[in-house]
Amino acid sequence: MNRQWQLARRPAAEPTVDDFKFATLDRPELRAADDVLIRNRFLSLDPYMRWRMNDAKSYAPPIGLGEVMVGATVGEVVASNDSGFGPGDLVVAGGGWQDYAIVKAPALRKCDAAEVGPTAYLGVLGSPGFTAYAGLMKIGEPKPGETVVVGAATGGVGSLVVQLAKSAGCRVVAVAGGAKKCALAVERFGADAAVDHRDPDLAQQLAAACPNGIDVYFENIGGRVLDAVIPLLNPFARVPVCGLISQYNSAKPDTNQTPLARLMQDTLVKRLLVRGFIVTDYLAYRDEFLAEVTPKVRSGAVVFMEDIVDGLEQAPAAFIGLLKGQNTGKLIIRID
Amino acid sequence: MNRQWQLARRPAAEPTVDDFKFATLDRPELRAADDVLIRNRFLSLDPYMRWRMNDAKSYAPPIGLGEVMVGATVGEVVASNDSGFGPGDLVVAGGGWQDYAIVKAPALRKCDAAEVGPTAYLGVLGSPGFTAYAGLMKIGEPKPGETVVVGAATGGVGSLVVQLAKSAGCRVVAVAGGAKKCALAVERFGADAAVDHRDPDLAQQLAAACPNGIDVYFENIGGRVLDAVIPLLNPFARVPVCGLISQYNSAKPDTNQTPLARLMQDTLVKRLLVRGFIVTDYLAYRDEFLAEVTPKVRSGAVVFMEDIVDGLEQAPAAFIGLLKGQNTGKLIIRID
Repeated sequence: MNRQWQLARRPAAEPTVDDFKFATLDRPELRAADDVLIRNRFLSLDPYMRWRMNDAKSYAPPIGLGEVMVGATVGEVVASNDSGFGPGDLVVAGGGWQDYAIVKAPALRKCDAAEVGPTAYLGVLGSPGFTAYAGLMKIGEPKPGETVVVGAATGGVGSLVVQLAKSAGCRVVAVAGGAKKCALAVERFGADAAVDHRDPDLAQQLAAACPNGIDVYFENIGGRVLDAVIPLLNPFARVPVCGLISQYNSAKPDTNQTPLARLMQDTLVKRLLVRGFIVTDYLAYRDEFLAEVTPKVRSGAVVFMEDIVDGLEQAPAAFIGLLKGQNTGKLIIRID
Repeated sequence: MNRQWQLARRPAAEPTVDDFKFATLDRPELRAADDVLIRNRFLSLDPYMRWRMNDAKSYAPPIGLGEVMVGATVGEVVASNDSGFGPGDLVVAGGGWQDYAIVKAPALRKCDAAEVGPTAYLGVLGSPGFTAYAGLMKIGEPKPGETVVVGAATGGVGSLVVQLAKSAGCRVVAVAGGAKKCALAVERFGADAAVDHRDPDLAQQLAAACPNGIDVYFENIGGRVLDAVIPLLNPFARVPVCGLISQYNSAKPDTNQTPLARLMQDTLVKRLLVRGFIVTDYLAYRDEFLAEVTPKVRSGAVVFMEDIVDGLEQAPAAFIGLLKGQNTGKLIIRID
């Protein structure tokens, strides 16, 4: 038989046990040529699952009512229609909250539990670990001497972010919930300092822990932690938005989210890139720009429009009008 | 003599003419070896100047009280201590709101007004044009068939963004103030559609103009235009944050900005990168991740911590606790 947890109803806010239904079904059977039958041994529970319980557009479809809860598992192959897998193979799969799963062979990866144990493939060597690596190294791009702040720093993702950032030569400030986790972040994972996000004094504590500001904020939390981080961000800081766990239980689209919460949710779900810039940051491209655009301006392929005001005396009035949108075209003062 | 506009006092909100002082000084004189004396002919007025009038930390120091207002100019060299420039040369300089300026030779660029006229170097071929190019091409990275929305679309920056985005094969939707500028954006600059940001119905109009959502939003405006844009952004959309003109007259740090306005201001001034991601976006790096981290896990150089709960029956309760931060370490269910 196959025991499984199904989504019984969509939680309004914090989930309750009544939102889940425990069902016992027949063991599933191989059908297609690439089907593999897995006996799940370990199931990873991760915050993103809360999001999948909502009926909201996201990066993945919501879990349907009556469907099995999704989740990564480590399990053993029981039977396989695919020649690449055989009984007894240890595999990582998206096996879900259940005893058995049929998984397509291309979605399986074999793992070798001999040295690290099977559960490492659900954490530090699994999606949480890879998430830490991708977000920190490919978006955060930490440089020696920089300050990296890590939300949810003792969790599956955050604990590797802390260690990778330390390896990169950064000062690492952990944000975690409660004194115990703060101590863990420092003593076990090697953070230089830790700040309790439940502390009413969070903003001051974080500022004190980041005397040189923040260069990378690995966002896992959102809400008031983000509020405390924003004023401390240094020029050219990077914010990989990995998760917003403080918002998940209230993240019902189109309800009473703040505009900032809405932007951050969309940034995560839609993988937005928001980047501020000043033109002097891109001076390396000025020759390229002139080479491309100058001939087009000369030929008339690129047109431009000017609003030329006569007399240096007129500059303040013209400028005040510019801020009100009163000019049409590029505003220029002919000085004399 | 040298007429000049100085900053007389810092505006509280919208500047008034009394915030500026018109002064007449002696013509400045060459001193250092690389000094060049310029007679300014044309002065560019740009929204960023409003920001420089505030006494706030930004990407550039504020203009001091009693100092000349900053600004790009096209002018003629009158005298030069630098052998690279001689009388009569036409140059682009940061000459400020005045008749004459001493500018260091390395900060000058000669320009050839023969074919495009001198003022083009303050607009389409100057910093506004280069800003359009850098933000759209290097951050926005428009692809054929995508939808690009451009704020302040008839201005010095926006009007080139519109044309570059059209060249890149995009559908271009202009946002501008008033029917006249909307018509201009379409008829002169080639936008496919234009939306009036003063329209109370802005959100609906923008949605109607962007039936396939928005892939690039070139942000020049902020405020309610941004609010209307956010829900329409497509997965993997890019938002180059170039300006926030709707906020400049109220952008006094640490006052009553909304959290979103604060983030956007910081994004611009500090050139932040905010990027959402999901681990599957980075699958190309998975082998690199495993190759780097697996040996460290094996050797103990990377540590991890697990919170293993026994029994599939416990999954909902454990998951509910996870969202409250009750577990310590990576949460895993041992199924059987």
